[in-house]
Formats: sequence, structure tokens, C-alpha cells
Amino acid sequence: MSAHKSKDVFAEALALHREKGGKLEVAAKAGVESMADLALVYTPGVAEACREIVRRPEAVYEVTAKWNMVAVITDGSAVLGLGDIGPLASLPVMEGKSILFKRFAGIDSFPLALKTRDVDEFVRTVALLTPYLGGINLEDISAPRCFEIERKLIEACDIPVFHDDQHGTAVIALAGLYNALKVVGKDISRIKVVMNGAGASGTAICNFLLAAGVTRVIVCDRGGAIYKGRPGLNEAKAALAARTNPGNEKGGLDEVIRGADVFLGLSGPGAVNADMVRSMARKAIVFALANPIPEIPPEEAKAAGAYVVATGRSDFPNQLNNCLGFPGIFKGALEVRARLINEDMKMAAARALSGLVSDSELTADYIIPTVFDPRVVPEMARAVAEAARRSGASRI
Amino acid sequence: MSAHKSKDVFAEALALHREKGGKLEVAAKAGVESMADLALVYTPGVAEACREIVRRPEAVYEVTAKWNMVAVITDGSAVLGLGDIGPLASLPVMEGKSILFKRFAGIDSFPLALKTRDVDEFVRTVALLTPYLGGINLEDISAPRCFEIERKLIEACDIPVFHDDQHGTAVIALAGLYNALKVVGKDISRIKVVMNGAGASGTAICNFLLAAGVTRVIVCDRGGAIYKGRPGLNEAKAALAARTNPGNEKGGLDEVIRGADVFLGLSGPGAVNADMVRSMARKAIVFALANPIPEIPPEEAKAAGAYVVATGRSDFPNQLNNCLGFPGIFKGALEVRARLINEDMKMAAARALSGLVSDSELTADYIIPTVFDPRVVPEMARAVAEAARRSGASRI
Repeated sequence: MSAHKSKDVFAEALALHREKGGKLEVAAKAGVESMADLALVYTPGVAEACREIVRRPEAVYEVTAKWNMVAVITDGSAVLGLGDIGPLASLPVMEGKSILFKRFAGIDSFPLALKTRDVDEFVRTVALLTPYLGGINLEDISAPRCFEIERKLIEACDIPVFHDDQHGTAVIALAGLYNALKVVGKDISRIKVVMNGAGASGTAICNFLLAAGVTRVIVCDRGGAIYKGRPGLNEAKAALAARTNPGNEKGGLDEVIRGADVFLGLSGPGAVNADMVRSMARKAIVFALANPIPEIPPEEAKAAGAYVVATGRSDFPNQLNNCLGFPGIFKGALEVRARLINEDMKMAAARALSGLVSDSELTADYIIPTVFDPRVVPEMARAVAEAARRSGASRI
Repeated sequence: MSAHKSKDVFAEALALHREKGGKLEVAAKAGVESMADLALVYTPGVAEACREIVRRPEAVYEVTAKWNMVAVITDGSAVLGLGDIGPLASLPVMEGKSILFKRFAGIDSFPLALKTRDVDEFVRTVALLTPYLGGINLEDISAPRCFEIERKLIEACDIPVFHDDQHGTAVIALAGLYNALKVVGKDISRIKVVMNGAGASGTAICNFLLAAGVTRVIVCDRGGAIYKGRPGLNEAKAALAARTNPGNEKGGLDEVIRGADVFLGLSGPGAVNADMVRSMARKAIVFALANPIPEIPPEEAKAAGAYVVATGRSDFPNQLNNCLGFPGIFKGALEVRARLINEDMKMAAARALSGLVSDSELTADYIIPTVFDPRVVPEMARAVAEAARRSGASRI
């Protein structure tokens, strides 16, 4: 996006936020226009809905909005590209996420921005809030804290806990990769994937690719390739080293990218250049997902020989937008009152998303549907719900 | 309410809750129908709203819905007349409260039912949630825990914390009392008030009456009159004894009610009988507020000589309904981004509410407007906002 256009969208967005006084509101599904109404929605009638839950706790999914309620929860430690701006300043993003839940999946959602940086306090706080929630969407929490928070919350909660920056991105990236591989005619088990960025989304995508059958992944961070025994790795990266880079390749991105079939960028503008793309295998796939400015401009990657290029942007083909993931994934999970969102469910979501592009439609410039394709959410939800039932994650 | 009618309202209420799948939903105030919309409400445009809050933290009241957002928070320990049914089963009441906030004051509100009974954990949890909230409405928390929770939360939070069962009820009761005293021509500083019930609402009403200039209040619990030195009083009741019952009267309700000008019941059906009412002073005022069945049927109290009778019910005159309080009080507090709801603000609310019944309209059967009177919320809000400004509780 040019500086001029960016400035416009920023000024217009701020004006919109001011004019509306925020983007979210609450609405009543039952009218209160008379004393008779009041007696039904509030005292004394409401007591019967309470008593029904006392009799059958699962009735809370029938007589309250829990069945369709997701909290978008953050500590504001890693907000968009803005970084650690804190819980207060993160709120416009969280409200945005909540209205996307509503727009794309009809899911009711409210933001909670927690004023703590202590992992255990964060976990305890969220776990205490679960009675009204059907699911928890963690958002914009910095790595590696987000891994510990998510793991502990999944243990503590009996509803889905999903860190969208990790798993939503991973589902969409894999869906795109499935179709890109079809376009170039390569087998997922035989490709070499090089990733740049070992934060929340990079780590999650890497894990998901391994689960999907990729055998050779090399993840790079600012220090170059992550390999077993590299000095100074934190716990999360040491664990990453243990399950990736089977050849123990060392060196900068420019070195390990040579001969790669796939480059996946979760880093920032300029991280990859035309020379690096030229050094990749033939019919290379480049997913330059840094937002709002990709690791390399798509036209430049194409000129350097990349066969399929995808970005996070709407003004280029193949937008891998996170709105393609969380609405359908949560909708499917809520539909079966899932206890969690497991690997099977995420894998089913990725397959359903990639399956929306038929073989006859598939081209290098069309590997993924757009977020406004009305089939995306219902198809993914159906697949996720089915996987939940099959894998025992569902309550109904 | 007859057993037959009650059964109907309960069955109908449960059916309504099922049919609607809960009473609350979330709505977007901004449409998302194109990529251009998406760029404004979400990335990249939303970043500018975040940056505005980084620059000026108070902008969170302008670019997010915080300015109008109240959480209804409970632990489910004292729900309606149902008692300690826990957070899950309390949710229909909390959703009901949230939709009443919307219906009566246009305030956006969502319920949170916390899975803890530890006072400090409850306080810490709620305090961490404040970034998105303009106010906190505590609901249905058992006494005496509610006093400690409220006190600690007020210290910990920079937004209003209001336990409606205490202070909302107190504001409405005082408004009713002001007008009832006009009807009977008695002076608030010279009356004898006897209360039955020393829980959350009883204690709060008592404190509020003292603040309003009542000098003689006797509070009774199941052990009769609370007096200084009565054996076995807990901390809250000992504190109550210290500031009430100046004559140190002892004995049961039937004894201390003799000669009282006002009886205030926050207890249960049958707590007061015709003989007791007959023993009160002439032109006695009886507020029998137990819900859904008052301490004494209004017609029976009238027959026994009570001059003004009020209840919590809509099918008798003078309904002291809690919907008369919290909507206007919060609306006024939110309007000035209040830091807290102080005594001045509550007192202003009570005066504004009683002032809505003009001297020419005032009768023994009309001391308080109905909840559907459209003047109630704006008038109370105006008075509360003004009191907040005057007392330094407002931010703007």
C-alpha cells in the first residue's frame, strides 16, 4: 500500500471509530415492553431458566447465549504490527475481531483486555470466566508467553481455547499450500519448506506442516536457521529445532533457502529478495505473509521465478486472510459444544477450505477463496463439527 | 401471585429462553461488506484507533465502546430467591439484567459469572478486566462477602463499581420513602424506622437512610433486633449495631415494631402480620419488598391500618422495582466517565426519582413512577451526572 493510500485509510478508520463510538454493541433477543414481558425475561419467570440449569447443567447451552458466545481475550502484548501497546490500546483490534465473528459466522463475541503480564494470573483469570463462554479466542499475545498461556488454559478449561494468531494462520496457510502444491504438481511429503519467523504464527504453522506430512522444514529467525544445538535458543525454539531441520542446515536465510520448494514468510518487509527466490527449486511457492507489507512484492517474486505467490493483502491474488479461518472453525466447534479444538478439527478445516477451489478452477493465481465467498464458513464449520464428533471432542 | 399464575409464568419463561437460545446477542455498529470496509474496521485501518489510544489513553472512551459498556458480574452465590445456585445457573438472571440495561438506558452490557468463591480472587479477577469496561454492576453476591468484595473493588478500580442489590434497592427505597413521608406529613429526621433483613440490601438501605437524615433505625434479623453487644454478631452486623438502634431496643420484630412510623421488609413472606402493623404509629408506612411474595399482602397491611404500602410487585400500586434504579444511575455515571458512584450521586438519584411524582399527583397509591415512565432514566441520569461533576467523581 502506498504511503498516500495508507494515510487515507488510517484517517478514515479513525474517523469511523470516533463517529460510531466503537464498533460493538449489545442487543436484546427478547423485547421488554410491558410488565408481562419483564416477568418473563426477568423476575419471577427467569428463575425457571435458572432452575433448569440446576437440574441439568448442560441446559445452559439451551437457555442462555453460551452456545454462541466467544470472548476475544488479549493482554495487548503483541498487537498487529504495533507490538506491545498494552490492553487499553489493543481494544479497537479486539472489537474488530468481535464484529468479524458476528459478520462472518453469526457468532456473538465480546472483547476482554486483561491488565496483567503474569502468565499464571492470566490463565487463572480466564479460567474463572468460562461459565458464560462457549469458546475463547486468544489474540495478540506475545511469543513465547502465548504458548504457555494456551497450553495451561487448554488444561484448565472445558471449552475450546484457540490462539488465532497461531492456529488460524496455520489452517489457512496449509489450505493454501495444499492447493499451491496441486498447481505445481509436487508431493507434500517430499518438499523442502523454509520459513522465516519463529514467533507465534511461525511456530504454529511449522507444527501444523509437520502434522500434515511435511518432512523437511527449516525455520529461520533473526539469527538464521534454527538447528539442534544452536547457542542461545530459548525453550520454545530449542523444541522447534528438535523436530525440524533434519539435515541440521546452518546459515542465513539466503543460504538455507537454496533449493527450497516453499518459502513461508511470517516476518517483515524485505526479509527475502529476488536473488533468494531465484535460488529456490523450480516451480517455487512463495507465501509472503507479513502484514501490511509482504516480505517481497508479489510481482518481484514472480519475476524472480516463483510460480505461486500468496500474501496477506487483498490487492493481490491469493490472499491468505485470517478471516478465512476463525469464523468457520469456531462455528463448527460451537455447533457440537466442543470441549476443545484439536488437531483433527484444524486439519479438517484446512482441507475443507482448500477443497472449495475445484481442480478445474485452480490456477497459480487462484488457490484460495476470498473471505466474502459465502461457502467458506458453512463448509469449514461442517468439516470441523464432523471432525469433532469423530475425534470425541464434541459434547453432542 | 397465585400458584396457578406462577406456574404459567415459569413455563412460559422457560419456553421463551429455549426458543430464543438466551436473551443476549452482540451486534456490529459498523458494516463489513467489502474489502474496503474490512480495511477500516480491521487491519490495517484499526491500527490508527490503537495509536490514538497510545497517544491519549482517554481516547479509549471515544474510539471503542468502553464509554457505554457495563459488565454484570456475579459468583452466583445469592441469586434472586434461589440462593446459592452457582455461576452457571445464575446466567439467565445476568443476561436478563444486561438486556434491561439496554432496554431502559441504551447501555451495552454483558454478563460474567465467575467460578470462584474466594473474595480476593474475585476482586483480582474483576480488577484485571477493567480496560474494556465503563462500569461494573455486581449482582447476586451473598452477604457479608458482597461488602468486602465491593469495598476492595472500589479501591482497585478506576471505574464505577456498584452492587445493585445493595445500592440500587437503597436508592429506590429512599425515593419511595421521601414521597410516602410527604403523603403522611412526617419529617424524615423524626421518624422511627424498623427494618427486617440485615443482608446486602437491608444493610445498604439502612446506611442510606442514615445518610439521608433518619436518626432512629432498628434493623432486625432472624435473632430479632440488632443491638450493640448482642452475642454472636458477625463483623458487618456489629458495625450495623454501632450506628443504629440508639435506644438499644431488644426483642423480636413484634416488639420493636411497636410505634414505628415505617416498616421496611427485605426478608420473606409472613415476616410481618396484621397485629404488628396495628401496633405501629398512626399513618404507618409499610414497604414489604420481599420478592416475589411480600412480607404481608398489601390489602392486609392496609386493613391493619397502614396508610402507604409499597411492594416489589407490579400487580399492586407503588412498585419499588429495581429497574427504576440502575439504568439511570449508570447512564449518568457513564455520561461523565465517572471514576466511581459516590453517596452524592446515589442521593441525587433518589431525589430525582421521587421528584418525578409532583405534589399534585402524589397519593398513598402513587408514590413512585412506573419503570416504563420515559422520564425516569433521563431525569435520574441528569441528576447523577450533575452530582458526579459537583463532587469530583467525573472525568469530564
